[in-house]
Amino acid sequence: MSTAAIPFPDRKSFGSDNHARVHPSIMSAVTEANSGDALPYGADRWTTAASSELKRLSGAQGEVYLVLNGTGANVLGLSLLLGRHEAVICAESAHINTDECGAPEQILGSKLLTVPAPDGKLTPALIASRLGGRGDEHFPQPAVVCLTQATEFGTCYSLDELAAIHEFCADNGLRVYLDGARLANAAAYLGCDLAAIARHADVLSFGGTKNGAMGVEALVVMSPSDAVSAAYLRKQQMQLVSKMRYLGAQLDALLRDDLWLRNARNSNAMAARLAAGLAPIPGVEVVYPVQADAVFARLSPEHIAALQKEWTFHVWDEDASVVRWMAAFDTQESDVDEFLTSIAATAS
Amino acid sequence: MSTAAIPFPDRKSFGSDNHARVHPSIMSAVTEANSGDALPYGADRWTTAASSELKRLSGAQGEVYLVLNGTGANVLGLSLLLGRHEAVICAESAHINTDECGAPEQILGSKLLTVPAPDGKLTPALIASRLGGRGDEHFPQPAVVCLTQATEFGTCYSLDELAAIHEFCADNGLRVYLDGARLANAAAYLGCDLAAIARHADVLSFGGTKNGAMGVEALVVMSPSDAVSAAYLRKQQMQLVSKMRYLGAQLDALLRDDLWLRNARNSNAMAARLAAGLAPIPGVEVVYPVQADAVFARLSPEHIAALQKEWTFHVWDEDASVVRWMAAFDTQESDVDEFLTSIAATAS
Amino acid sequence: MSTAAIPFPDRKSFGSDNHARVHPSIMSAVTEANSGDALPYGADRWTTAASSELKRLSGAQGEVYLVLNGTGANVLGLSLLLGRHEAVICAESAHINTDECGAPEQILGSKLLTVPAPDGKLTPALIASRLGGRGDEHFPQPAVVCLTQATEFGTCYSLDELAAIHEFCADNGLRVYLDGARLANAAAYLGCDLAAIARHADVLSFGGTKNGAMGVEALVVMSPSDAVSAAYLRKQQMQLVSKMRYLGAQLDALLRDDLWLRNARNSNAMAARLAAGLAPIPGVEVVYPVQADAVFARLSPEHIAALQKEWTFHVWDEDASVVRWMAAFDTQESDVDEFLTSIAATAS
Amino acid sequence: MSTAAIPFPDRKSFGSDNHARVHPSIMSAVTEANSGDALPYGADRWTTAASSELKRLSGAQGEVYLVLNGTGANVLGLSLLLGRHEAVICAESAHINTDECGAPEQILGSKLLTVPAPDGKLTPALIASRLGGRGDEHFPQPAVVCLTQATEFGTCYSLDELAAIHEFCADNGLRVYLDGARLANAAAYLGCDLAAIARHADVLSFGGTKNGAMGVEALVVMSPSDAVSAAYLRKQQMQLVSKMRYLGAQLDALLRDDLWLRNARNSNAMAARLAAGLAPIPGVEVVYPVQADAVFARLSPEHIAALQKEWTFHVWDEDASVVRWMAAFDTQESDVDEFLTSIAATAS
Repeated sequence: MSTAAIPFPDRKSFGSDNHARVHPSIMSAVTEANSGDALPYGADRWTTAASSELKRLSGAQGEVYLVLNGTGANVLGLSLLLGRHEAVICAESAHINTDECGAPEQILGSKLLTVPAPDGKLTPALIASRLGGRGDEHFPQPAVVCLTQATEFGTCYSLDELAAIHEFCADNGLRVYLDGARLANAAAYLGCDLAAIARHADVLSFGGTKNGAMGVEALVVMSPSDAVSAAYLRKQQMQLVSKMRYLGAQLDALLRDDLWLRNARNSNAMAARLAAGLAPIPGVEVVYPVQADAVFARLSPEHIAALQKEWTFHVWDEDASVVRWMAAFDTQESDVDEFLTSIAATAS
Repeated sequence: MSTAAIPFPDRKSFGSDNHARVHPSIMSAVTEANSGDALPYGADRWTTAASSELKRLSGAQGEVYLVLNGTGANVLGLSLLLGRHEAVICAESAHINTDECGAPEQILGSKLLTVPAPDGKLTPALIASRLGGRGDEHFPQPAVVCLTQATEFGTCYSLDELAAIHEFCADNGLRVYLDGARLANAAAYLGCDLAAIARHADVLSFGGTKNGAMGVEALVVMSPSDAVSAAYLRKQQMQLVSKMRYLGAQLDALLRDDLWLRNARNSNAMAARLAAGLAPIPGVEVVYPVQADAVFARLSPEHIAALQKEWTFHVWDEDASVVRWMAAFDTQESDVDEFLTSIAATAS
Repeated sequence: MSTAAIPFPDRKSFGSDNHARVHPSIMSAVTEANSGDALPYGADRWTTAASSELKRLSGAQGEVYLVLNGTGANVLGLSLLLGRHEAVICAESAHINTDECGAPEQILGSKLLTVPAPDGKLTPALIASRLGGRGDEHFPQPAVVCLTQATEFGTCYSLDELAAIHEFCADNGLRVYLDGARLANAAAYLGCDLAAIARHADVLSFGGTKNGAMGVEALVVMSPSDAVSAAYLRKQQMQLVSKMRYLGAQLDALLRDDLWLRNARNSNAMAARLAAGLAPIPGVEVVYPVQADAVFARLSPEHIAALQKEWTFHVWDEDASVVRWMAAFDTQESDVDEFLTSIAATAS
Repeated sequence: MSTAAIPFPDRKSFGSDNHARVHPSIMSAVTEANSGDALPYGADRWTTAASSELKRLSGAQGEVYLVLNGTGANVLGLSLLLGRHEAVICAESAHINTDECGAPEQILGSKLLTVPAPDGKLTPALIASRLGGRGDEHFPQPAVVCLTQATEFGTCYSLDELAAIHEFCADNGLRVYLDGARLANAAAYLGCDLAAIARHADVLSFGGTKNGAMGVEALVVMSPSDAVSAAYLRKQQMQLVSKMRYLGAQLDALLRDDLWLRNARNSNAMAARLAAGLAPIPGVEVVYPVQADAVFARLSPEHIAALQKEWTFHVWDEDASVVRWMAAFDTQESDVDEFLTSIAATAS
């Protein structure tokens, strides 16, 4: 996306949930934490409280580790589950495959065994398709399945789908890592608590940054036995910060009074409103079920060009003429309606 | 250091400059940046302004990259200068050798060729001692010299010392990486501008976190030719954040009105005041020149134990009975004087 | 392939060219080299002579490095051309993707950008399909195209096809690595000299092991500027042997009197004879053009099972019921004819 | 060492045990194995027999893996015992630290915690000196102790010394890797069987190449639980060869009729003869106990220069004016005596 003529700040960006600011309650928590000294590296009361609360919400018996960004969470999480000779099965569209500049390969040395996945979701059958070569020394051994919840395409695994994958993995000696950069959106869509999702993973991330935080992700290790080396690996992978109270305070505020869920509900609702409003507009086709905070739509290149003169968003697939429109925790109904008016006005 | 009985927040910590809070001006800048949308990954005006200003201050012709912590800055910086078969010469006491959980080895695969260095400082002669094996395929080839300014021992290279090392390195085909997690303290001690130090390095970091920021370090690449892969490597090494405006705002505020220098001057002055006040106290020996914000002192184990009942600090070397006392940007004269009173009172 | 009932040594194996013994001339050269002392690590006259001859044959201006196996050659070759943030474009069927237990990812940290390729061969259009994301810091940057000549499917790039790829790569800032584990078979098929192929690559391997040697591959670096770190990397990647004269002697013998070409011509001819003999047999379909020493054929699972009672070969793709039959330097016409008789007899 | 004026083949080299040829019995075994086809990758009768015999000799309950060189054996062996966040304690003089071009760091990402060790030998006290930082996330955690037997200085651990280290390691949660590139020399010196040494290690290498083989090392994994990933890692680390029968045949011959022991006894005896003969020569001082096949001696630079005109050997430490003289399996008494005559004649 060209940033040359970005129309900020007049109109709400539909470019990404990370274009948004920090939620005021979270910013307040950060400023309130700014008093006196605190022990570094997580030995502060904010981090302790937030980690404890997230353990409770997710039903984890292991530990919670705060990290700095989504790629950091994914790499750290995978590193807890993977030996040097082992590989990760993931959807072709998985963030670890498409958006992390090869970090899993470079930092962990792990091969990704990718599968084309409709709607971005793996299934037992798709996973099974990459299990060839087990026991053959010429192949890296599939050991971890990486799910993204919600997916890069804005779809969500149902709890039944997760359970089926979990069972398949357990039966086949595979561990489950769940990339939850938008886990809150999935929980909001499914109407379930975090534990209902987390129980189907061995290690998962819980994203804050895309959901109103400034910059914090939490890695949740469900079992203590998988957490043995996590503290060392977090440091080695450059995800440990000294003044961690400011991360702890963010997460603490996000988990308080269901702010994480309220934020996600808003962004989901705004994406749904946008999708609903597109229905009567000719030449605009929604291409994936809208289950989180993203709408993927196909429209003509000319239509895209006209819209990008006034609005900020990404062309997702130039060949297919598909765009991604994302809502955020602070997207308002009026933003969506104004955007819909523009989309309709520029439709031919 | 046991954290069981930490007396926070009644008494100022002398444990580390990272126990301190965020400077109010920096926190204000962060909250002021929290309005509306902004493009992610550094394409925001705060990051642009701060990077531009740091380039100006350091005289860099290359680029500035904001990262998340000191280890991240060091690993990224080294990765710009090192081939797979090349090694880093550093002092045994260097942060990259002692405090990064082996990140340079694990993330970059690079061998560290360490040298015992008095006061933590390398010299041309010490560097030369690790140049054996050049041209022999059985040895990783020394390619980068890593300096720490100020050092882990609170000492500073003089500009003449830096110039001599720089010249030696240029003559011997070695690049210079300067770990500037406390570069501000060094500049304050030397009474020079950043450019006077930066000109002797190829790549350097400029630390914010230990000098009043919340969590931001800047990697300064002096020449454009060394920056070609930096943006990719920052992402791959998990040091790229989406909502970078909040890092940019921190650095922007730190560089404004010489805040970086004023903060460093205060912590240096408080360390000097502490060292001066120790002189008449029997049984307490300062073991390194006090040139930055740290005082290393030898005192009896009983004395240490008595002090740790009321004050927070690290035992640096248990065998040698040496402690580290650090000042911060917000340490006040009264904190130092109170601490000195306690030290004197518990001396036997 | 089950090895339980391997009928060695009564019948010639069609399992792989690496089931074969060492060519007598090569074994003689090894035993003749076994006299007195020799300097290690390649400073012996056999290695010097063989390297020099291979440079001449391939037209290389750079250097030749003897290594221990095909994976070692591929990893070393790629490491000369790849930065940490760069990726390799290759066919899905490439040996580096399917048969090296993830070595390129684990040893180099490099992502493979794979393309489904008919007959195992890349084209400029297929390469172009993986060039998206250039200049975007979230993607590893495509830097090297890996060709296999002959391919895993027993097909060969024509010189025109290689020239077109080479030109495309030059125009698009891509380097060419050519995996030549069966380069001799390709040269024999094309009727060209090595230089005609090598000129279209930056670095290539020349395989000995599959062509009658005991265990030696040569990495040919066409330009001196790409060879600067090769000696160090060979050692670091555990591909340097001390008693290298025995590798040098193998390669020396292989290059003498066109033995490499004569061996390849025989294995190619035997594969062609096998393919020709299959034509009248019902229910057996050759699925790739037979241009090197391999025949891929589709036949019924029952037919495969019947044949495997008496003959040694691999089922290549169980789902597609496709087998691979390979000839070797020492396969004889009578071996092929006997095999054909069995195939016909077990056909239903 | 300059190779410009190497006087091969007139005089026996004292440069290294790897300057020597292959023992005739081993070469015969290689040529005898050269008949008909064989399954690759170790599924041949020579490899099976040799591995089985080495398991018996070493008392291993796990497995034996043939690899291509000493660095390959060391890296593979360490990789079986080390997590990503763990480090290796070794002597400064260890081969993994000084002669492998940083392979442990580059290939495994592991930090080496080195100790200056008199005579090249670790002790419980020296090991204990590197155990600081355990439990601190800022330090890679010491997990493996690497012993070299015989050491780079030609000294041997006694069985009591090994037992003491083994007990210390067991008590402190450390695993033992034993680099046995010259294990035969140590067993010959100690007059013990392999099992008496092997029982004090978790994983060890048994070197063939320096003891009369062409190029084979065996990695012995004592317990099956440590061997789970070994086959995959051997392939990934480029140490798996297709025509492995030729490695198996080498090891098979080496283990037959105690050839490994007879070879080692000869080289040890020749080193001892050399050391004894040096005693009366003025200005030549043996600097380490001569317990294997190497003699380290201090003599004047002029003396060294004079000798190097006619003899091949390495200057080990130019600053200390120390040379290394090595015997081999095929060094004869007359070679030693002729060398001693020259040494005496050039002494001043």
